[in-house]
Amino acid sequence: MEQTLTLLVLDLVGCFVFALSGGLMAVRKELDIFGVIVLACVTGLGGGFLRDMAIGATPVAALSDWRYLVVPMTAGLLTFYFHPALGRLGPMINVFDALGLGLFVIAGAVKALDFGLSPLAAAVMGLATGVGGGAIRDVLAGQVPVILRRSVFYAIPAFAGAAIVAFGLFLALPQSLVMAVAFVVCVGWRLLAMWRHWEAPLPRGSASV
Amino acid sequence: MEQTLTLLVLDLVGCFVFALSGGLMAVRKELDIFGVIVLACVTGLGGGFLRDMAIGATPVAALSDWRYLVVPMTAGLLTFYFHPALGRLGPMINVFDALGLGLFVIAGAVKALDFGLSPLAAAVMGLATGVGGGAIRDVLAGQVPVILRRSVFYAIPAFAGAAIVAFGLFLALPQSLVMAVAFVVCVGWRLLAMWRHWEAPLPRGSASV
Amino acid sequence: MEQTLTLLVLDLVGCFVFALSGGLMAVRKELDIFGVIVLACVTGLGGGFLRDMAIGATPVAALSDWRYLVVPMTAGLLTFYFHPALGRLGPMINVFDALGLGLFVIAGAVKALDFGLSPLAAAVMGLATGVGGGAIRDVLAGQVPVILRRSVFYAIPAFAGAAIVAFGLFLALPQSLVMAVAFVVCVGWRLLAMWRHWEAPLPRGSASV
Repeated sequence: MEQTLTLLVLDLVGCFVFALSGGLMAVRKELDIFGVIVLACVTGLGGGFLRDMAIGATPVAALSDWRYLVVPMTAGLLTFYFHPALGRLGPMINVFDALGLGLFVIAGAVKALDFGLSPLAAAVMGLATGVGGGAIRDVLAGQVPVILRRSVFYAIPAFAGAAIVAFGLFLALPQSLVMAVAFVVCVGWRLLAMWRHWEAPLPRGSASV
Repeated sequence: MEQTLTLLVLDLVGCFVFALSGGLMAVRKELDIFGVIVLACVTGLGGGFLRDMAIGATPVAALSDWRYLVVPMTAGLLTFYFHPALGRLGPMINVFDALGLGLFVIAGAVKALDFGLSPLAAAVMGLATGVGGGAIRDVLAGQVPVILRRSVFYAIPAFAGAAIVAFGLFLALPQSLVMAVAFVVCVGWRLLAMWRHWEAPLPRGSASV
Repeated sequence: MEQTLTLLVLDLVGCFVFALSGGLMAVRKELDIFGVIVLACVTGLGGGFLRDMAIGATPVAALSDWRYLVVPMTAGLLTFYFHPALGRLGPMINVFDALGLGLFVIAGAVKALDFGLSPLAAAVMGLATGVGGGAIRDVLAGQVPVILRRSVFYAIPAFAGAAIVAFGLFLALPQSLVMAVAFVVCVGWRLLAMWRHWEAPLPRGSASV
């Protein structure tokens, strides 16, 4: 029970942070107030929508609990009115974004395991939960998703964290420990990759097809 | 029974009109005949697909009733052969589009309530039903969705109409009255916004993040 | 049982080939190694995801069988390291792509019929299974989907093959014969269209709306 509450709070915090990133993208694209709110909601909720539709957890969680709708709407409104202040927060935003990623991949992998998926499939769903919202945000804004372009920052730590949770819980390792390790790996990797400008290998030679 | 029939007819008319808008986008993008038909179908059916997948109403409605497939295919064919005539209809198209929006948000919110969603979630699903097809159309055509850019024309009236239906029916107000008010508010707002060139507030200051 | 195995193998081969096309697109867009793997997986699995979410076959097949995840991951890795060799294969890629299309539309239509859909709806789902992954690939890469632009190569043969399977099995014609005819029509059409540079009719006159 208590753990469920913790997961809910973490999930809502992740949703809020991702919604901020969607709102900021909307401000950058000069969308109006409602466009900002809609893009914030789509970004904050998109990953969970994808996961729930894929595993058959319908109606999807965001529609069964009003807090999942109010939180990203609020984030969108805040972005609209206070985006210059958010801009001054600068690197803080990236930290929040990393925390959101960590929360989402864990929540996604745990839920997928609960629905009887294999560890590998649960890891993939954790990844999808973590990066899905941002991918939809970028597609709607007319950009190649940043998760494809800078995978060291997003896709790799997200998959690492999700895989630790999925296989750790599958092997019945202590739940809190597994989640803590996954969180630290995912968030730490994401932040280190950004601060140290890590880059993943690029294809050698130009594309010939 | 009779009411269900009315809803079906309204839904099919909305689907037809939205499919026309998808077909016209395809003509503008110089797609060939099958591209026109596919984009017409995706635009006419996309909102309902999203709604049904999210609330778990599967197989989605458009796949359970052949009329939902034949109507947008016909609209696509008509657009392909008669798009210059449609062009001369000019503002009429916008009126049809507004009517389609009104029909879809009402049908979407009603169906979501039927599936046990809360009024707020039902309003969100009404919005998604009304604007989802157009958003998919724009993304496939390589554009930032018009519903994000001109929210006064689409997203705001759609959400207003959906919210009136969702909360009105939740409060057990007279069904016909609630739907009529929602329809008038959604369609009227949409048309007034267009004819009077309303604009929603834009973010102040340039994006700094 | 044996037939199910055959279908599974064909489905995995189709998934592998489509994943190669996604990986090649990623190489062309200069994505890094993980971006290549992710785009390969999305392309190989996207069509089946869409189909299963729409007909309510959840958790979607790709999440219930680890082979559906390992196959496109492998294809992505192979593309990353050996894309110049794939480039030299040249036209062979198009042949594989055509085979993949044929396999996917048949598998998609058969599964939709199994879920009780009408023949028309099953044909549409066969089409969606065959072209959905490529459409998602193109949208993520920032392009108007090739299936909309070159429908003679993709959408028309895919729909033709899917319709033959859907209506053939609905009419209880011999299963193997129906599938063989559908496969030959779909793949043959796709290859002929490419080699003979077929083109579908374009809209006459410029778009006036």
